[in-house]
This record gives sequence, C-alpha cells and structure tokens, in this order.
Amino acid sequence: MEGKSALFKNFAGLNSIPLVLDTKDPDEIVETLIRLRPSFGAVNLEDISAPRCFEIEKRVIEALDCPVMHDDQHGTAIVVLAALKGAVKVQDRDIRGLRVVISGAGAAGVACANILLAAGIADVTVLDSKGIVSEDRQDLNEVKVDLAGRTNPAARRGGVARALDGADVFLGVSAGTVPEELIATMAENAIVFALSNPDPEIHPDVARKHAAIVATGRSDFPNQINNVLAFPGVFKGALDAGARRITEGMKLAAAEAILSVVGDELAVDKIVPSPLDPRVAPAVAEAVAKAAIPSAPAGTQAV
Amino acid sequence: MEGKSALFKNFAGLNSIPLVLDTKDPDEIVETLIRLRPSFGAVNLEDISAPRCFEIEKRVIEALDCPVMHDDQHGTAIVVLAALKGAVKVQDRDIRGLRVVISGAGAAGVACANILLAAGIADVTVLDSKGIVSEDRQDLNEVKVDLAGRTNPAARRGGVARALDGADVFLGVSAGTVPEELIATMAENAIVFALSNPDPEIHPDVARKHAAIVATGRSDFPNQINNVLAFPGVFKGALDAGARRITEGMKLAAAEAILSVVGDELAVDKIVPSPLDPRVAPAVAEAVAKAAIPSAPAGTQAV
Repeated sequence: MEGKSALFKNFAGLNSIPLVLDTKDPDEIVETLIRLRPSFGAVNLEDISAPRCFEIEKRVIEALDCPVMHDDQHGTAIVVLAALKGAVKVQDRDIRGLRVVISGAGAAGVACANILLAAGIADVTVLDSKGIVSEDRQDLNEVKVDLAGRTNPAARRGGVARALDGADVFLGVSAGTVPEELIATMAENAIVFALSNPDPEIHPDVARKHAAIVATGRSDFPNQINNVLAFPGVFKGALDAGARRITEGMKLAAAEAILSVVGDELAVDKIVPSPLDPRVAPAVAEAVAKAAIPSAPAGTQAV
Repeated sequence: MEGKSALFKNFAGLNSIPLVLDTKDPDEIVETLIRLRPSFGAVNLEDISAPRCFEIEKRVIEALDCPVMHDDQHGTAIVVLAALKGAVKVQDRDIRGLRVVISGAGAAGVACANILLAAGIADVTVLDSKGIVSEDRQDLNEVKVDLAGRTNPAARRGGVARALDGADVFLGVSAGTVPEELIATMAENAIVFALSNPDPEIHPDVARKHAAIVATGRSDFPNQINNVLAFPGVFKGALDAGARRITEGMKLAAAEAILSVVGDELAVDKIVPSPLDPRVAPAVAEAVAKAAIPSAPAGTQAV
C-alpha cells in the first residue's frame, strides 16, 4: 500500500495515505471508514479477500458520498479489458464474439467477468477451485450464484479442460497453474493472460507456442498487465469531476483511454502501454472525468 | 490539524496525517484508534474537549503500545512550565514558592495544574466558570473532584477576585476575561500568562502596568507561548527512544530543554524561545529521548 501511495503521487499527483486496519470484520471496516470520511476525498480499498471484499465495497460505496474503489477488483478488470481490446484490435476481430474462460472467482475474477460482460462479451465462463461456476452447483456462495446466472451460457460443467476446449481467451487470476496440453486445445489465435504473480498460470514462453497473444503481470515479459495503468487516473478523473461514485461507464472509459495511449505502436507484443508511461494516467483521468459528468449529482461536479 | 502536520514535518522531520473523525463518542474514538494502530508510530490527539479528553487520552494510552499525547493538554502544559521556569529565573526566585492561579479547568487548565504540581509548586488554585475548584463544591465532575483534592491548599472559596488577591502567577487558559483591577491586587513581581487566543484574558499592555512579566499566545507580543515549542520535539524524542509511553519525566525534561535554548538571551520579554527557533525541537527531542530510556521496556529502545 505504501507503494500504491507513491504511484498515486507520481502518476496522478494525488496525496494518499496507507491505512492498515487491525480488523478483518466487515462491520468494523465499514464503520471505521465512515468515521474517517471527513479526512479523505476518496477511498481505494486494498487487500481484502473475496467474498468479504464484495460486501465491504458495496457497503462502503453506499455509506460514503465520495469515490470508492476496490482496486484488486476493478483496477485489474479495467486493465484486463484494455489489454483484451488491444489484443482483438491487433487480430482485427470483434471482442463481443470471443469465448472467454476466467480461472479464478476471487476479487479479480469476479470483477473481470463483470467488466467483460459489460463490454458486450456474451460467452464468459468462470472457474473456481472446484471447476466451472455453473447454475447446478450446490456449493456456491451468493456472489458465485449470481455469477452463475450471468455466465457460462453453454451450460458447461466440469473443470478447466472442459472450459478451455475451443476457447478464445484464457484469463488466469487464480494463483493456480494450467498445463500446456490444455492451452493447446484452445481455438486458433488464442489469447492467454496468465496474470498470477510472480508465477504465471503458465510460463509465457510455453503459452506462446500455442497462443497468438500472451500477457502476464510481470515486467520481464512483453504485455505487462499492471493495475497502475488504471487506479491513479481513475481516482484523479473521479476527483476532478467531483464525482460521488465510480460508475461502470467510468471504468469502461478508463479501459478505452489506456488502450488509446498505445496508438500506432499496437502489436502482438504491445497490447497495453508500459506501466511507466506517463501519458496513461492523464489520459485515463480525462476520460473518466468526462464519463463521470452525466451521472454526477447536480452541484458536485467541477465543470 | 493540517498545520500541525506541517509543523511536525518542518521542525522534527516527522511525517504525519491529519485524521478527522466523524464521531464525538469516546468509545468510538478509542475503538477507531485501536483499529488504526498498525498504520502509525504515535498518536497526537487534538481538539477533544474536556472532560471527554481525559478519559479518551487515558483509554487510548492504555490500549496502544505507542506514544500518545493530547497536545491541547500536555503541549500547553509543557510550554507553560518552560515559560514559568524562564520567568522565575529572570526574577531569581524559586518556582516552588509561587502561588499560582489558573483560570480554566478544561483540557489545558487541568494539564497545567498537574505539571506545575509535578514541578514542585505547592500552591496552585484552579477556577472554572463557577469559581474556585474547592473540595466543598457539589457541582464538580470526576476530574475536578480529583483536582480539588490536590490544589487550593489554603481552601479558598469564591471567585477570581478571591483567588488573585496576593497571587504570584495568573495563568489564563479559559477564553474568559479578567479585569485590570484584579490583576492590580496580585503580589509584587506578578507574572501574567494570558493565553486565550486571539483575545487574551487581559490585554498585555494593560497587564504590564501591574505585572512584572507578561506572556500571551500571540505572535505580535513578546513571550509567545506556543505548543509548537513542545510537540514536534516530544514526539521525535519518544519515537527516537522507542518509548511506548510519554511519561511525566519526559514532559518535565521537554520543558527544561525548551528553556535551555533561551540561554543568555533570557529576559523579562524573552522567557521562552521564539516558536520559529529551529534549535528547540532537536533540543527537546534529545532531552525527551534521554528521559525516556530508563522507563522504556527492554527491547523497544533505540540505543
């Protein structure tokens, strides 16, 4: 969190303070943030595990009249969407036609599923440690039940082998591994985002034998997918606009803005800008502020 | 509080953050600080009114294993003691023989009474808005009952006129006023600290007609008594020493260190250093750290 504070300052000029709470109780976390409300203009939630993170984020958003975002969810989701948009642009195909498999139903996995659905992708399948999240499963928590109703339109059942067969996109946000043989069963021009860090779900050199485009969370391989591309600009834009909420529209606008910075350099090994590119945060902030204005309550926006 | 953060940084090199809590409930304040404990190395409490401030400070000190100080109490008390030591040094008399009247039994008044008693002054009388805090009064809260048992050894009763008649020191920390006629009844070589800000209990030019030494909280008169002389160095010293508590000994040492900086310049119109004197905080920090070491638990001190 200290590092994120430094990145907020460096990329977006925002002053922030890492607050570490000595409690994991959702009631106490929400209550503490309500009491601290007068101290801050926005709240970036960090390091809260699923499924508590969903409830906590929802309750904090409802309780506070300022921008709130759980970066592990939405920062990741925004950058994944930007990268996927970059990948399909390179391949000259329509993002909506992709069949996407997400390995991991934690904070990042759920948020990625949501943003990809919001971006118009119809066929998203999510796996947790027990297999495909599907409506017939009896062991799902509330969040996964909801997810099961909106994903897996082909009603597949089983594990990652069943899910990956013929899929266009593998998105790993699970800290697990996926064997090369299964990546080999994906569709032509497959896209693999193996984001677990420091050990990707599959080594990028191996993935590249079967996939057309590979991205990881690591800085020592091409196509690094890093949340810093999103959060400084998202918060800067929300604060600049006087927005009380970070909306889905603002997140989609952020993803577009990240992609826009790549411009003519877009290529198989450059589907996102470098995390160090100083042009990204201002572009994201501008796009987010613009997207915020129509939904901002009267009197709260800076015009 | 933002200003205090800047002063912490400027005078002691300490990073701090002003946290404004949206609650006045003692339980909630204490609970919130406990939850925030991992984020901070020390806590400076601010702007909590009496008598809640006494209970809250006590409970926070008990709950947290780090230096905690309510500056409105102890910062003021330390600087008042330093100034009074400066005044008696100018007058070449013993501080223990003074008869002191404190107008105000809030955060600052109570803390000043305590530190002056700890410094060996036997005759301290405190007034609240109803008059002298004495043992026969039935309208006292717990803190004032305690105070009544330790002050007013001559068992005076009545108001400020009764208290000031023949007194050596008037210390105003009340936001009230005191008429010139009463200051005129004080003993020879009277000392008047009229600290209410921006309107002192009596105008210093008027007080000077009757008192030998006059101090205020204002920067446009000589002898400015300002908490910044204490808190940056006190916290720096406590943190440097790895102290878990700010003890009475550390506060007395801080007062001595503040006075020591005046050195040869000590005079009727210079009983304390300038609040901007950069030598003060390092001197206070060194003295506080030294005073802390004997009481620090093994393993927590920086040697």
